[in-house]
Amino acid sequence: MNITFLLFPNLTQLDFTGPLQVLSRLPGANVALAAKHKAPVPTDTVLTLNPTHDLTDCPPTDLLCIPGGFGIDDAMRDEETIAFVKREGGRAKYITSVCTGAFILGAAGLLKGKKATTHWAYHNELKRVGAEPVKARVVRDGNLFTGGGVTAGIDFAFTLAAEVAGEDAAKAIQLGLEYDPAPPFLAGSPEKAAGPVLKAQEMRYAPRIEAFRTALAKAMNQS
Amino acid sequence: MNITFLLFPNLTQLDFTGPLQVLSRLPGANVALAAKHKAPVPTDTVLTLNPTHDLTDCPPTDLLCIPGGFGIDDAMRDEETIAFVKREGGRAKYITSVCTGAFILGAAGLLKGKKATTHWAYHNELKRVGAEPVKARVVRDGNLFTGGGVTAGIDFAFTLAAEVAGEDAAKAIQLGLEYDPAPPFLAGSPEKAAGPVLKAQEMRYAPRIEAFRTALAKAMNQS
Repeated sequence: MNITFLLFPNLTQLDFTGPLQVLSRLPGANVALAAKHKAPVPTDTVLTLNPTHDLTDCPPTDLLCIPGGFGIDDAMRDEETIAFVKREGGRAKYITSVCTGAFILGAAGLLKGKKATTHWAYHNELKRVGAEPVKARVVRDGNLFTGGGVTAGIDFAFTLAAEVAGEDAAKAIQLGLEYDPAPPFLAGSPEKAAGPVLKAQEMRYAPRIEAFRTALAKAMNQS
Repeated sequence: MNITFLLFPNLTQLDFTGPLQVLSRLPGANVALAAKHKAPVPTDTVLTLNPTHDLTDCPPTDLLCIPGGFGIDDAMRDEETIAFVKREGGRAKYITSVCTGAFILGAAGLLKGKKATTHWAYHNELKRVGAEPVKARVVRDGNLFTGGGVTAGIDFAFTLAAEVAGEDAAKAIQLGLEYDPAPPFLAGSPEKAAGPVLKAQEMRYAPRIEAFRTALAKAMNQS
């Protein structure tokens, strides 16, 4: 099972490292980290990521996984990146994304008419790529699996692990990673966050979403 | 607030990348990734990690965080690494670990007489470094914060975020990272995992724990 993660500048590192941890433990997993260039890829933190492959030497993908982050604004307008996603998405058994990575699939035309999810702040934007937004942490539509924002990638990865290798294999990985979450606060969704916390985050995202809409419009014109 | 993560070969990458994602979003966070050498550090996955500092040029630490993984067997016996942990632990406002990273703190003498937790499979071993094992996902004893296995590092990081910057700051990060976990299965602790899943994992860990005990005995003799 060739699992390919797409890396691009300014991705949210946990969108990628959460699923990476889970899916790497699947029996027979052969993981590739593919980026446009083999130089270290910057993230939203001080951590930079070293690709194992570029977009030309990556092995044929069985499971394609696209993380999100503010870097999508550039990535979804990058012709080589979108051509890679179209090509690998066309042959992969599973097409998947976490968080706003959904819009890279969308820019490649892979979400048309599909049920999907993304980060809560970008949820309604899914219609712009022809998807049907579903409010859930993990959404499956045929061979397409999408996860919600950032940490939803962990729930997404266990769902995918069970699909690929069976429930017992997924549970074994879950026990090994001690995934028995107990958040100290209840603020992980717009519904659960208190008024001022949500308001502040909405204000923080508003200009980002404006910029995103402009970038997406250009991406959709290109493709 | 200078936050320092210790990187060492063959750490479990999510032990580090989970807390990194949360703590990087703290207001005023200045994060350093310190390793013995500045070359990329291998992990338990195909991802390698690029340090930002080595053990000699790292800024003075306010919050020291040590991840775990099978690489602890070597790291806790490495004199330079332990000297670094002693030195930075001595001046840090917060001393913290995730998963089996606790044993690196233990090898540096920082867990003596302290309540602490670690990965479930290594829980009883905490007595060997003079700690009092507490079965909880996150344990605080004064300025020492320890998290359980791998994904417990996320709950740990939110607990720590609230301590450092207040509950509203922690909740804002939680909403941004959409941390509203919904595991598809209940198998994330020995108590919740079904019989055969637990048995298989216990068998997988048994030889690792044997090797660990030998390594720890050597580490304790050295210090």
